[in-house]
Amino acid sequence: MSEIFDVIIVGAGTAGLAALREVKKRTGNFMLINDGAWGTICARVGCMPSKTLIEAASAFHRRHAFEKFGIRGAASLTIEIPAVLQRVRRLRDDFVATTLKMTDALGERAISGRARLLGVGRLAVNDREFSAKNIIIATGSHPVVPDAWRPFATQLLTTDTLFEQETLPARMAVIGLGPIGIEMAQSLSRLGIEVVAFEAGMNIGGLSDPRVNATAIDILRREFSVHLGEKADLEAVKGEAGGGVRMRVRAKESEAVVDSVLVGLGRRPNVSHLGLENLGVELDEDGLPPVDPHTMRISDLPVFLAGDANGDTLLLHEAADEGHIAGINATGAAPALFARRTPLSIVFADPGIAMVGKRFQSKCASNMLAGEVDFRNQGRARAGQRNKGVLRVYAEPESGRLLGAEMCAPAAEHIAHLLALAVDRSLTVHDMLRMPFYHPVLEEGLRTALRQLATQLPSCGESDLAGCEPLGAQALE
Amino acid sequence: MSEIFDVIIVGAGTAGLAALREVKKRTGNFMLINDGAWGTICARVGCMPSKTLIEAASAFHRRHAFEKFGIRGAASLTIEIPAVLQRVRRLRDDFVATTLKMTDALGERAISGRARLLGVGRLAVNDREFSAKNIIIATGSHPVVPDAWRPFATQLLTTDTLFEQETLPARMAVIGLGPIGIEMAQSLSRLGIEVVAFEAGMNIGGLSDPRVNATAIDILRREFSVHLGEKADLEAVKGEAGGGVRMRVRAKESEAVVDSVLVGLGRRPNVSHLGLENLGVELDEDGLPPVDPHTMRISDLPVFLAGDANGDTLLLHEAADEGHIAGINATGAAPALFARRTPLSIVFADPGIAMVGKRFQSKCASNMLAGEVDFRNQGRARAGQRNKGVLRVYAEPESGRLLGAEMCAPAAEHIAHLLALAVDRSLTVHDMLRMPFYHPVLEEGLRTALRQLATQLPSCGESDLAGCEPLGAQALE
Repeated sequence: MSEIFDVIIVGAGTAGLAALREVKKRTGNFMLINDGAWGTICARVGCMPSKTLIEAASAFHRRHAFEKFGIRGAASLTIEIPAVLQRVRRLRDDFVATTLKMTDALGERAISGRARLLGVGRLAVNDREFSAKNIIIATGSHPVVPDAWRPFATQLLTTDTLFEQETLPARMAVIGLGPIGIEMAQSLSRLGIEVVAFEAGMNIGGLSDPRVNATAIDILRREFSVHLGEKADLEAVKGEAGGGVRMRVRAKESEAVVDSVLVGLGRRPNVSHLGLENLGVELDEDGLPPVDPHTMRISDLPVFLAGDANGDTLLLHEAADEGHIAGINATGAAPALFARRTPLSIVFADPGIAMVGKRFQSKCASNMLAGEVDFRNQGRARAGQRNKGVLRVYAEPESGRLLGAEMCAPAAEHIAHLLALAVDRSLTVHDMLRMPFYHPVLEEGLRTALRQLATQLPSCGESDLAGCEPLGAQALE
Repeated sequence: MSEIFDVIIVGAGTAGLAALREVKKRTGNFMLINDGAWGTICARVGCMPSKTLIEAASAFHRRHAFEKFGIRGAASLTIEIPAVLQRVRRLRDDFVATTLKMTDALGERAISGRARLLGVGRLAVNDREFSAKNIIIATGSHPVVPDAWRPFATQLLTTDTLFEQETLPARMAVIGLGPIGIEMAQSLSRLGIEVVAFEAGMNIGGLSDPRVNATAIDILRREFSVHLGEKADLEAVKGEAGGGVRMRVRAKESEAVVDSVLVGLGRRPNVSHLGLENLGVELDEDGLPPVDPHTMRISDLPVFLAGDANGDTLLLHEAADEGHIAGINATGAAPALFARRTPLSIVFADPGIAMVGKRFQSKCASNMLAGEVDFRNQGRARAGQRNKGVLRVYAEPESGRLLGAEMCAPAAEHIAHLLALAVDRSLTVHDMLRMPFYHPVLEEGLRTALRQLATQLPSCGESDLAGCEPLGAQALE
């Protein structure tokens, strides 16, 4: 085939679609190739269905607060798991449909098939060969399932299959307490399933601050079993009362027999069939080439690797950015360097877990000040029966510049955005203490932590409201 | 009495206590005088009990989302209003107790009684006369009840008496839809009380943006009756079936007979018995002297007027600031000028109502650009069945500097803090678009509004992620 495209995009997920949007502005001579189902991970099996499940589970869980509020009859509430899952799929289909609209109009410029690189500027799909001046690879990621567990494939669930279930069994194991493991373990437990969770490490959800990590674990343990520091292994066991096959999860010091296992061991880039080895650049042990995060370019080639596929940060907003960068750079003369965003990670647990900017356990951690708030006595949190969790915020000594935060706290997803803006703009503790904090809000908890940081810093001028101290009425802060 | 105090503080509410904290750092020669019950408006009859009531009412209201989520049995939930009110009072007592602790240790330095100024530096309390180099007046405010309605005093409720009720009747009127009127009307309605609300004006909750105001009204009307542009009048009517006295609320085009009336016509400074006329400065038609908001000083006198009592912004965080400023300036050589905070108002309705920075209807409104988001199709809001409301954000043309926002939107109280920080730091639309927005969060709705603003502004550089556009999948933004 003699035609040479300006750009071929491989993958029509979030990164691919973001790239497409930029490419289309600059050339009509492009092609989009997608393997498997069209629609993004986010809409199909990721962010959206998981959040829809979480919202139902959290709404049901809230009944435990009812008696204290003065609401009677909570005991007669039940949850119909098939209906929950049906709604998840119905909304999921809506969300997926909106992503499909973006590729529907492409006609012959969009083809289905698995692409394999033959070299720089050349790839094969469905036994046809295509050439392009620039190639953007955005093939996404898939849930990790250890090879040793392949024999149990039918008993194992991942987020690829969880939302497809008609119903869910009485007893489930969740293996891995990263963001997805935490979100799903808590939700499944809140749906009434007996959940037992195993995590090989001692930290969960990406947290590095020991105090926040311990608080998060303690809170989750009140809802379901959590085994930490125990690498789990699986074996199939016969169902006892003529039921189907059950699984035995064996870890160092504990074991559990469950009806089903959700594997939440993270996600891995979809690169093994891509032929990256044909690009002539060295690949690392995960089979990944060197990618400049400011251009998304592989080495100095006209090939770009964006989104989950590069294995960097597997987050939707980063994938969208990377597609944007790749789309611009695959159609421009010289690659432009993009400053990347302030790191932000959120686990949609309750209370939420979030990390902003620098982690507590990072290279410069020894030189960070920390301020802290415990939400047990925070006024608004008490009024809403959401008074649990802790938030820690980090700043540079002397300058007071905010560096980051880790938290397991009510409204974490909101407070994390406030802190992300502050960190992104290189604001100081005093800058933040100059903003208004309304009363009574959960953000006043953040203010308590900031004030604690302020006591460790040179004070601001006397006529600066940033110097306001707590009134001293703990429950009103 | 010959002793001359360095400072006398009149009023032990939020502003008085904030002043006390600063005064105590600088002198032991002070006195605190308080009239009536000790403890702050906020803790006793304001922010805290109202939010506690709102939390219970909102938790109960959430049952309407249950069926769609897959939760069954919502119809058998009931709310026990006496229990709700009991919890409100129990928590209220806790909150009040924490404020009392701050004055308990003062011994003879704290006295109960009504103070009356005799002149600059002189006042009388309980027939005793006191002199002070500086006087801080922080006497707070009280709910407005028109004089004509005094005869019905026992049928009328205000926030002073609402939380003291053992139970609440079946049908109530709420007169006035400012922040308190909205919060209480919605909560009472959500507790199962038939509520009919009257507002003399056409705008509610302090909103000035017609689009946001209309959305807020439309949303509230789905929960209870709202009569706008109708000044209400009252008369007593005999209860029909041998019950007690009921009230007829008569407005221009509508009337309602109710069991009880909550008056939510705002609050007025407690100054009528203060003897402000003895200070020798001109008072305005409300009996208030001129106060410099940057020093809290009355004219050039050593007398300071802080908190609700000066009738400026009757908000806790502003009252605390004003007490802080007055406390410092009443003990310093020359009054220091304090820059005040970015305006922020929140109505704890659902969805929340909030206003940040410049109002849409303000002097410079004609020169503001606006960006908007409707939450009906916002992805996360749909997942959580909270997809209603609108947010509008305003910026300066050309520079793109953020000026303010008005909203009736999910997570308004959180998004308003994010915008308050941005406005406070004079950030631009592009500055905000550079921050990370996680997915899926309600803050992405704000990003949609910011992006709409960005299209009206000179574009940012091509290698700036602030230039990222929507993917085009509406429900995923």
